[in-house]
Amino acid sequence: MSCSSSDLALLLGSSANSSAAADYICNQFADAGYAIDTTYLLFSAYLVFSMQLGFAMLCAGSVRAKNTMNIMLTNVLDAAAGGLFYYLFGFAFAFGGPSNGFIGKHFFGLKEVPEPGFDYSNFLYQWAFAIAAAGITSGSIAERTQFVAYLIYSSFLTGFVYPVVSHWFWSGDGWAAAARNPGESLLFKSGVIDFAGSGVVHMVGGIAGLWGALIEGPRIGRFDHGGRSVALRGHSATLVVLGTFLLWFGWYGFNPGSFNVIFKTYGPSGSLHGQWSAVGRTAVTTTLAGCTAALTTLFGKRLQTGHWNVTDVCNGLLGGFAAITSGCSVVDPWAAIICGFVSAWVLIGLNKLAAALKFDDPLEAAQLHGGCGAWGIIFTALFARERYVNEVYPGRPGRPYGLFMGGGGRLLAAHVVQILVIVGWVSATMGPLFYALHKFGLLRISGEDEMAGMDLTRHGGFAYVYHDDDSITQNGSPGGGGGFMLKSSVVRVEPRTAPAAATNHEQV
Amino acid sequence: MSCSSSDLALLLGSSANSSAAADYICNQFADAGYAIDTTYLLFSAYLVFSMQLGFAMLCAGSVRAKNTMNIMLTNVLDAAAGGLFYYLFGFAFAFGGPSNGFIGKHFFGLKEVPEPGFDYSNFLYQWAFAIAAAGITSGSIAERTQFVAYLIYSSFLTGFVYPVVSHWFWSGDGWAAAARNPGESLLFKSGVIDFAGSGVVHMVGGIAGLWGALIEGPRIGRFDHGGRSVALRGHSATLVVLGTFLLWFGWYGFNPGSFNVIFKTYGPSGSLHGQWSAVGRTAVTTTLAGCTAALTTLFGKRLQTGHWNVTDVCNGLLGGFAAITSGCSVVDPWAAIICGFVSAWVLIGLNKLAAALKFDDPLEAAQLHGGCGAWGIIFTALFARERYVNEVYPGRPGRPYGLFMGGGGRLLAAHVVQILVIVGWVSATMGPLFYALHKFGLLRISGEDEMAGMDLTRHGGFAYVYHDDDSITQNGSPGGGGGFMLKSSVVRVEPRTAPAAATNHEQV
Amino acid sequence: MSCSSSDLALLLGSSANSSAAADYICNQFADAGYAIDTTYLLFSAYLVFSMQLGFAMLCAGSVRAKNTMNIMLTNVLDAAAGGLFYYLFGFAFAFGGPSNGFIGKHFFGLKEVPEPGFDYSNFLYQWAFAIAAAGITSGSIAERTQFVAYLIYSSFLTGFVYPVVSHWFWSGDGWAAAARNPGESLLFKSGVIDFAGSGVVHMVGGIAGLWGALIEGPRIGRFDHGGRSVALRGHSATLVVLGTFLLWFGWYGFNPGSFNVIFKTYGPSGSLHGQWSAVGRTAVTTTLAGCTAALTTLFGKRLQTGHWNVTDVCNGLLGGFAAITSGCSVVDPWAAIICGFVSAWVLIGLNKLAAALKFDDPLEAAQLHGGCGAWGIIFTALFARERYVNEVYPGRPGRPYGLFMGGGGRLLAAHVVQILVIVGWVSATMGPLFYALHKFGLLRISGEDEMAGMDLTRHGGFAYVYHDDDSITQNGSPGGGGGFMLKSSVVRVEPRTAPAAATNHEQV
Repeated sequence: MSCSSSDLALLLGSSANSSAAADYICNQFADAGYAIDTTYLLFSAYLVFSMQLGFAMLCAGSVRAKNTMNIMLTNVLDAAAGGLFYYLFGFAFAFGGPSNGFIGKHFFGLKEVPEPGFDYSNFLYQWAFAIAAAGITSGSIAERTQFVAYLIYSSFLTGFVYPVVSHWFWSGDGWAAAARNPGESLLFKSGVIDFAGSGVVHMVGGIAGLWGALIEGPRIGRFDHGGRSVALRGHSATLVVLGTFLLWFGWYGFNPGSFNVIFKTYGPSGSLHGQWSAVGRTAVTTTLAGCTAALTTLFGKRLQTGHWNVTDVCNGLLGGFAAITSGCSVVDPWAAIICGFVSAWVLIGLNKLAAALKFDDPLEAAQLHGGCGAWGIIFTALFARERYVNEVYPGRPGRPYGLFMGGGGRLLAAHVVQILVIVGWVSATMGPLFYALHKFGLLRISGEDEMAGMDLTRHGGFAYVYHDDDSITQNGSPGGGGGFMLKSSVVRVEPRTAPAAATNHEQV
Repeated sequence: MSCSSSDLALLLGSSANSSAAADYICNQFADAGYAIDTTYLLFSAYLVFSMQLGFAMLCAGSVRAKNTMNIMLTNVLDAAAGGLFYYLFGFAFAFGGPSNGFIGKHFFGLKEVPEPGFDYSNFLYQWAFAIAAAGITSGSIAERTQFVAYLIYSSFLTGFVYPVVSHWFWSGDGWAAAARNPGESLLFKSGVIDFAGSGVVHMVGGIAGLWGALIEGPRIGRFDHGGRSVALRGHSATLVVLGTFLLWFGWYGFNPGSFNVIFKTYGPSGSLHGQWSAVGRTAVTTTLAGCTAALTTLFGKRLQTGHWNVTDVCNGLLGGFAAITSGCSVVDPWAAIICGFVSAWVLIGLNKLAAALKFDDPLEAAQLHGGCGAWGIIFTALFARERYVNEVYPGRPGRPYGLFMGGGGRLLAAHVVQILVIVGWVSATMGPLFYALHKFGLLRISGEDEMAGMDLTRHGGFAYVYHDDDSITQNGSPGGGGGFMLKSSVVRVEPRTAPAAATNHEQV
Repeated sequence: MSCSSSDLALLLGSSANSSAAADYICNQFADAGYAIDTTYLLFSAYLVFSMQLGFAMLCAGSVRAKNTMNIMLTNVLDAAAGGLFYYLFGFAFAFGGPSNGFIGKHFFGLKEVPEPGFDYSNFLYQWAFAIAAAGITSGSIAERTQFVAYLIYSSFLTGFVYPVVSHWFWSGDGWAAAARNPGESLLFKSGVIDFAGSGVVHMVGGIAGLWGALIEGPRIGRFDHGGRSVALRGHSATLVVLGTFLLWFGWYGFNPGSFNVIFKTYGPSGSLHGQWSAVGRTAVTTTLAGCTAALTTLFGKRLQTGHWNVTDVCNGLLGGFAAITSGCSVVDPWAAIICGFVSAWVLIGLNKLAAALKFDDPLEAAQLHGGCGAWGIIFTALFARERYVNEVYPGRPGRPYGLFMGGGGRLLAAHVVQILVIVGWVSATMGPLFYALHKFGLLRISGEDEMAGMDLTRHGGFAYVYHDDDSITQNGSPGGGGGFMLKSSVVRVEPRTAPAAATNHEQV
C-alpha cells in the first residue's frame, strides 16, 4: 500500500479541503490493505498449520506400528502446548521490541496487540512456525523416548530456545536481522537473510534433534552385532507420502507467506512490480528446489540401491524445501534448481555418514533439517540477486548480496556466523537439557518397553485393530489355536525376545 | 468498506462534478470490497468443507474396521445430499427473508441470487455448515443403523431442522438473532450471540444424535453382562488423528470465516482497528480454547486411566473447539483458555455419565457437540466483552454483554433460552422421526448384521485388503489350513458368535 | 479493476493536476488489484496442487497393497518432473505468444516473466494443471507398467502433448480459443468454451490412459477363463474416500480459480455484478454437479448390484466434476444438476462397455475423465447461458451460446471439433509412444513381477508393516509355524501361483 496523502493532496489542487480529501482516499486504501494483507497472512498461517498434520502423518508412517500412538500424540501436543506457551511468552520473547537485541520483552499474553505490524494474525502465523520446530525434533528421538521427556523439551524449545533465535534474525531489534530497524547497524553491514527460516526453524529443530538422538543412542536393533546398519522400516509408506504432500502444500504458506503483506508496490505504483510478484516467484523457487531434489534423489538412490524408493524420494523432496527456505525470496528460479540438486546430495551424504557413525535418527530429521538447512543458508549467500535483495529488504542501498552474483563476501560471512551461533545456542541449551534428562533417568524408555512398543505400555493400546478376531484373544478364550492367535493378534501381545527389526541391510 | 461518497464529495470541493468524482472513487472501493470479501468467504467455505473430510476420517478411525465403508458413505452423502437439499430449500428456509421470524421463504433453488448480502459465495459457505450438522449426528448412531434410516434423517436434518434453527439465530429476520434487522426488537434486548454456531450447529447435531443413540440403544457388547462399560475401540488411531487435525484446519474457516466480510473498519478509517483484526483475534481464541482443552484432557485422563491417550486428547481438543465456537469473536484470548479448560471437564464428566447410564455414542458426539456446545453458549454469556460485542454486532449502543464482564444478566437469559429452544425443537422433530423409524423397523440393523459388520452385508465388502493370500480363500481352495484361513481372511468371513469387542474395562 | 484515469480526470475537474490526480488514484487501485488477484490465484493454485495428493491417495487405495509404493511414486514424480519440464518448456509451449496458433514459443525457463497477464503466479497455477493430466493417465495403466515407461510418457505428456492442447484452447493465440485475441476470428465465430478443462485436461489424460491400457492389455486375473469380469479390489476404501474428498477440495481451485482474476466488474462499478459473483456461481455449479452425480450413482449402482458402495459413489462424484469442468462458469446451477445426472449414467454405461470389451483400467480413468469429460464438452454447448458467456468471454457481442438456451448450433459445432481434435492429437502422439514402448519391451512388467507385486520387486519392499512378528520370519527363525508364518507375513512373501484376485463377479 503506497498511497501518500501529501502527494495526492498536491495533485488534488488548491481547494481548502484537498488535504482532507487526500487523507480520506488514502485511508480507504489503508483499510483495503489491512483487509487484503490479513486475508493473505491468515490463510498462509492456516497452510503452515496444516504442516503439523503433515509432520504427524510423516512421523506416524516412518515409525513402526507399535509406536504410532506415541509419535502422533507428540505431534498433537506440539501444537497444543505450543499454543499456550507461545501465547504466554514465546511471542513476547521473539517479537516484543524494543529489546536489547537478544530477547524481546513485551506482548506477554498478547498484551498491546494490535499494534502497527503486530496484529493477531501475526501471532497466529508465528505460532504455526514455532510448533514446526518442535515437530522436527520429535522425529529424531522417536521410538525410544519417554513421554515426559518429550513434554519437557518441547515446552522449552517452543517457549524459549526457538523464540530467542527468531528474535535475533527476524525481529527489527535482532542483532543479526537483515531487516533491522532503521538507524541500527547491520552485521557485517549485511545482516542475515534467512527469509523463511532454513536456520531459524529447520536448523534449530534439527540440531536439537541431533543432541537428543546422540545422547539417547540408537534404537535396539538399529545396528546389528557386526555393527552393520539395519533398516527399521516405518509401518506405512502411504502415511509417509500423505505427510510429505501435506508438508509440500503447507510450505506454500511457510515460504511465500513469510512476506506477511502482499499489497506493496516495488516500482512506480500501477506497474507490474510489487510484492505480489515476489510472492509468486517465491512459490516458484520453492517448488523447483523441491522438485529437483526429489528427482536427484530418485536417480541417486536408484544407482546406490537398485530400486526406486518412494520414501527416499519424499525425504529428498523435503530436504530441497528445507534448503530453499532461507533464500526463496531473493534467488532466481534457475538458482533454486541448483539449490535442490545439491541438497539431495547433502542428504544422501549425511545419511551415509550417520550410518557410519552409528547415529540413529528415525526420521533423518537432523540430517534433513539440520544439514540441508545449513546448506540452504550458504546457498543464499552465494546466489542472492541484487535486485531481489533490495526489494525484499529495502532502505539500505548498496547492501551486499550473493557472492556468485557479484555481491561480495559479506553476506556469506554473516551467514557463516548464523550457522555457528545457531549450532552454539541450540547446543548450549538443548544439549544440557537432554543430558540432564538422561542423567535423571527421564529420557529413554526401558528395553522392555522399547521391544513391546510404547503404544501398548504407555498409550492405552495398539493404534490399529483390523481384525475383530484379534479381540477374541482378549476375552480369555484363545481356543485351540492359542499359539497362532497370540501371533496374529495385534492387541496387547508383546514380543519381548525377538529383535523388532527387519533385516534389510543397508549398504553403508 | 466505508467509503462514503457524500463525505468525499464535500472534501473534493465546489466543482460541479465533485459528487460524481466521489461516486466514481467510492464505487471502485465497493468493487474492491466485493473482490476481497468474496475471496475471503470462498476460501473460508473451502476450509469448512474440508471438515467433512475430517469427519469422514475421524468417524472411520473411531469405528471398527468392519463398519468403515458404511460410515464413510454416510459422510460422503451428507455432503452430496446436503448439496441438493440445501440448494432446493434449505438455504431458503434459513435466509430467505423477509420472513415471519420462524422460517425463511425465498431463495428456493437460488432464485433472486445475487442480492445484497446474498451472493453465491454465501450459499456455498452456509451449505458447508449445514452438512457439518448432519455429520455430527452420524457419529452418534454409527455401527448399528440401517443405511436407509440414515438417508431419511440426514435429508430431514439438513433440509429442514437445521435451516430453521439457523434462521432463528442468524437471519436478520430471526426472532432471537443478535444481529436482527434494525427496528426489530431483540430478545431480552440482547438477542443470542451464537457467532459461529455452538448451538446452531453443534448442539443441533449433538441433540439429534442423542435421540438416535437413545432410541437405538447401545451396540452389542458395549456393556458386558455385569453392566460394565467395555471399550469397543476404533480400528485406526491414525485416522482419528488425521480427522482431528483436518477438523482443526477447517475450524479456521468455520469461526473466523463467520464474519463473512473482512473489509470493514471499526474505528476511524485508516487506523488499525477493523474487522481484519477481529478475524485474527477469532482465529486466536479458537486456537487457544482447543489447545487448552487438549492439554487438560491429556492430564485429566492420565490421572484417571494411567496412560497418555491420543484419541482422548483428540476428542478433548474438538470439545474445546465446539465450545469456543459460540463466543470466539467477542471474548479475549485469556477467556478462551478458561473456555477450553472447563470444556475438557464437561466432556470427561458427560462421558462418565453416559457410561453410567449405559448410553452408547461411538463418537461421543452427543456429549462433545451437545455438551461442550451448551457450555460454550453459557460461557459466551459470561465472558463476552463490551467493546467486541459492539464492534461485531453494531448499531445497538448499550446492548448487554457478558455477566462476568459487567454486562448484566440479559445476555445469559437469552442464551439459556437458546439452549432450551434448541433442545426442544430438535427433540420435537428428530425424536419422533427416530422413533417412527424404530417402530417401522427401519432404524437398527439385525444382530447378525451387526456382528458381521455392515460392510460385508450391505456395502459390497470389507474396506481393506492388505494380504493377497486373503483372496485365495475366496477361490474355494482354502487348503489344509482352512480354520486358520477363515480367521485370518479379511474378506467375506463373518464371525457370528463371538462378541466383537475388546475387553478394556473402563473405570466408570 | 475498472478504474479509468481519463474518466476520473474529467470528474476531478479543471485543475491542471486533475489528470495526475486521477492517475495517482487509479494506479493505487491497480496495485490493489494485483494484490487481490494474486492472492486469489495463488491460493487457488495451492488447492489445485492438493489434488495431486488426492490422486495419490485415490490411486493408492484403488490398487492392491502390493503395488502401493509404485503408484504413489508415480504421483510424486508427476509433480516433481512436471515442475522441471513445465518450467523449462511446457509453459512456453502453452502460453508463449505470439505464436502460430499451434504452439507457443517464449517464456522458456520463465524468461520475460513477469509480463502483463503472465506473472509467476500464473505459471504456478498452470503447472498444477499440467501435472493433473499426467496423474489421470497413471491410473489407467496402474499395476502392470514398468517404472521407466512411466517416466517417459509422463515427461512427454506434461512437457509437450498437454501444453500444445492448452495453447489451442486457452491461449489468446490459440486457433480454437473462445477468448482469442481481439481481431482474430473465432472458430465457427464462437471458439471453444472449455473453461477449466473437461477437454484440455480430463480428456487429454483419459485418452492417453485409454491407449496405454489398450496396448498393455488387462491385468492378470482381471477376466477369468470364461471371460467374465473379476473385480480386483483396491486395498483401502479409506484411502479412496480420502483421495476423493481431497480432489473435491482441490476442484474449488481448479474451476473457480480458472477465472485467474476476481477483481473485475461486469456491470456499472459499485453494483453487485462482477467476477466475484461469477466465481461464487462457478463454485456452486461445480458442487451441484458432483453432488447429483454421486446420488445418481448411489441409487443406480444399488439397483444393479444390490448394495450401497462408497467407492462407486466416489467415482460417480468425480465423473460429475470432470463433466462440469468445461461449462462451470457459463451455466446455471439447475443446469449443473442435469450435467451431473447424465454424467453418472455415462460412467456407468462406459464401465459396462469396458467390461464387455475386456478393457481394464484400474481407476476407471479413461471412462471417467475421457468419457465424462467429453459429455461435459457437449453439455456446455447445450446449456451455456447468453449473459454468462458474454460476461466471462467479453468483447464479442452476439457470440453463440448454448443450443438449448436459444444460442444456435455454432458453439456445439466448435465443441464437436474440440472432441475430435483432442482424440486425434492425443491418439497421434501418445498412441505411437505407448506402442513403441511396448515393442521395445519397456511397457509391461513380467508376469512374475505382476503376481508378486511391483513394490517387492522394484521399489524396495511392501508399503505396510503392521505386525512386528512379521519381521521374525525374516530373521530366519520361523519356528514351528513356518507354513503359517509365510502366509501371514506381509513382507517378502510372494504368492506366485494363485490368482491375485477376489472373485466378486460383476454383472456385465
